[in-house]
Amino acid sequence: MALVVQKYGGTSVGDPERIRAVAEHIARTRAAGNDVVVVVSAMGKFTDELLRMADAVSATRPPRELDMLLTAGERISMALVSMALADLGVEAASFTGSQAGIITDTDHTRAKILEMRPERIREALEVGQVAVVAGFQGVSTERDITTLGRGGSDVTAVALAAALGADVCEIYTDVTGVFSADPRVAPRARRLSRVSFDEMMEIAATGGRVLMLRSVEFARRHGVPLVVRSSFTWEPGTWIVEEDPTMEEAVVSAITDDTSEAKVTVGGVPDRPGVAARLFRALAEAGINVDMIVQNTGANGMTDISFTVAKTDLGAAREKCLAIKDEINAAQVSTDDAIGRVSIVGAGMKSSPGVTALMFETLSDNGINIEMISTSSIRISCVVRADRVGDAVRCLHTAFGLDAVQS
Amino acid sequence: MALVVQKYGGTSVGDPERIRAVAEHIARTRAAGNDVVVVVSAMGKFTDELLRMADAVSATRPPRELDMLLTAGERISMALVSMALADLGVEAASFTGSQAGIITDTDHTRAKILEMRPERIREALEVGQVAVVAGFQGVSTERDITTLGRGGSDVTAVALAAALGADVCEIYTDVTGVFSADPRVAPRARRLSRVSFDEMMEIAATGGRVLMLRSVEFARRHGVPLVVRSSFTWEPGTWIVEEDPTMEEAVVSAITDDTSEAKVTVGGVPDRPGVAARLFRALAEAGINVDMIVQNTGANGMTDISFTVAKTDLGAAREKCLAIKDEINAAQVSTDDAIGRVSIVGAGMKSSPGVTALMFETLSDNGINIEMISTSSIRISCVVRADRVGDAVRCLHTAFGLDAVQS
Repeated sequence: MALVVQKYGGTSVGDPERIRAVAEHIARTRAAGNDVVVVVSAMGKFTDELLRMADAVSATRPPRELDMLLTAGERISMALVSMALADLGVEAASFTGSQAGIITDTDHTRAKILEMRPERIREALEVGQVAVVAGFQGVSTERDITTLGRGGSDVTAVALAAALGADVCEIYTDVTGVFSADPRVAPRARRLSRVSFDEMMEIAATGGRVLMLRSVEFARRHGVPLVVRSSFTWEPGTWIVEEDPTMEEAVVSAITDDTSEAKVTVGGVPDRPGVAARLFRALAEAGINVDMIVQNTGANGMTDISFTVAKTDLGAAREKCLAIKDEINAAQVSTDDAIGRVSIVGAGMKSSPGVTALMFETLSDNGINIEMISTSSIRISCVVRADRVGDAVRCLHTAFGLDAVQS
Repeated sequence: MALVVQKYGGTSVGDPERIRAVAEHIARTRAAGNDVVVVVSAMGKFTDELLRMADAVSATRPPRELDMLLTAGERISMALVSMALADLGVEAASFTGSQAGIITDTDHTRAKILEMRPERIREALEVGQVAVVAGFQGVSTERDITTLGRGGSDVTAVALAAALGADVCEIYTDVTGVFSADPRVAPRARRLSRVSFDEMMEIAATGGRVLMLRSVEFARRHGVPLVVRSSFTWEPGTWIVEEDPTMEEAVVSAITDDTSEAKVTVGGVPDRPGVAARLFRALAEAGINVDMIVQNTGANGMTDISFTVAKTDLGAAREKCLAIKDEINAAQVSTDDAIGRVSIVGAGMKSSPGVTALMFETLSDNGINIEMISTSSIRISCVVRADRVGDAVRCLHTAFGLDAVQS
């Protein structure tokens, strides 16, 4: 008898037929002798619909009210899933984030969980009910309704799994797991049966769209075994687990790509202490998240600092740089939004020399110029022209031996 | 500086444009120096949409989950109204039924309010905010979300007005007030500027569609002055107030009609004590609400008992009567769903002899046969053929001097 937390995303509960299919899977899990806690997102595009309504009545959209509005979505899907379970003879009860004891800070639209008090969920499990919990939402220390921001429903599921000591947290979505590359970009990508938390975090951080970085971090910190599965085919999926030191790791597990960022270069800056600090402090104060940072110092005592930001932040970042250009004695500020990042991720990289060289050679052999490089112990990322990202993913996927055997 | 509770029904907040219009009226009320508490229903047909979804996933529709589902509707409209207010520079905060301290029993889908603890509403008013509260919903003593049943949003508004000691409870709807008859039936009907609680209760009980009996009862019990107004024209509307003994009452204030009921006659029953009790106990146990009851005893010691029930309960009522027919020695059970009820309501009736006679004469002069009669101190109701209800309303409206002066 295990305790299983299952999270169903928006496409998984997108219409009545999908909701009934999900209820049947929950019933099967229950019939197999498991205690089950279900976390649901809002149905399909319902959140977008609510946002359109908000836009139609308000330009200011106060965050507290936006949260109140958006949380209606999960309320609907969790009630419908519970009703569908009742038809299958499965006793179920739905709980809002507040009822599930998900206590957050007061940072509306992107609240952080401060504490989990899932007493009512425990009580429901004790009397044999399936607990169906609204994802993405909580209640603040000021007793206001909050939302957890992007990927919030996954965070809800992982946080509940951690607080309840669940044996597994199953994330159901519209893909069959985590792939060695985006199958739309690399048709020969294959599903990974398992990846380590470290790898999954690098994959999530560099363009993998299946899981958000935040929920993976949370799961690793609390030792919650995660599995990503399809709610359409119910295939086994991908397990995200602690690294097992006795196992032989693949050198490279996945190739990721990300074309959502743009590059800013502050050029001709005197190479003096404090210049970079001043620059990135100014950006941080403007609420701009900087991703890759590369600095090259030339022979003339001048340096170029390049960094990437989300394309949506590019205008603000450029403005900020121009504002402090004179203060830091920079020669120029330039921007480029036609870039993309290609990364290779693999826990085995740590003990395998030559990976970096193979990556650069492969790109070079395919005539793909590298504009920026950044590395971690289990990842190497290269910024290339946006229109070469697909080629880069495919040739790296082949070079690192990831291509599925063709049938 | 007054405390005003304003309730907006589904058509009043039916689309973004309506929501902005409502926000503007709230802003005007606030600018006039009033404290304002707003109660909203779900937008237009949204509740019906949710019910359709429930039907699509579940045949059993457990009441607890149905309540969880339906309360999403007010959540959406209250957040949107609050957002629209923010755009007008009016500080507002929305509150669920639970946050507003509306404590109910555990009777899902038709819960009764047990206690009002509107501390958060008071706090909001104290800091100068408009409090926007979800109508129709509360939280049970078991901490589950409940709904208050039909007309529940009006009940929320009245209960809040009572608990907060509001100066007035304004019910905004898509009509301009309470009329001397249904204007669709009697084109010469006119808006009443004021009616007494007693009259309003009789009007609500006999077919007036503007206010539900339950909220009028609640308002009278707590002495909350009500006014019914249009959120489309913002005309003055109809005040529902305590009778003022110094004022001259109109003999008859309104003519109402109701064709939603059917008649059951249990005929040829021996006129013995306990027969009626046995019959209506059986119906009550089956959850069938009986409205008018008329019993006529003939010379032969036999009696006919006729009563009206909602058409939707007719089948069940007939079945129940047939089941106990032999036990009470009844000769036959017959039903008739082609009836309608016409009522005259007026506080002045108490002190005006001749009203009954004028009603019967008027119907008779117009060739309308009376099948059942029931009276209260300020109402007389007659059951007539359904297809003569319109004629009956119009001729009574004229006979009692209610016709608007034609321009």
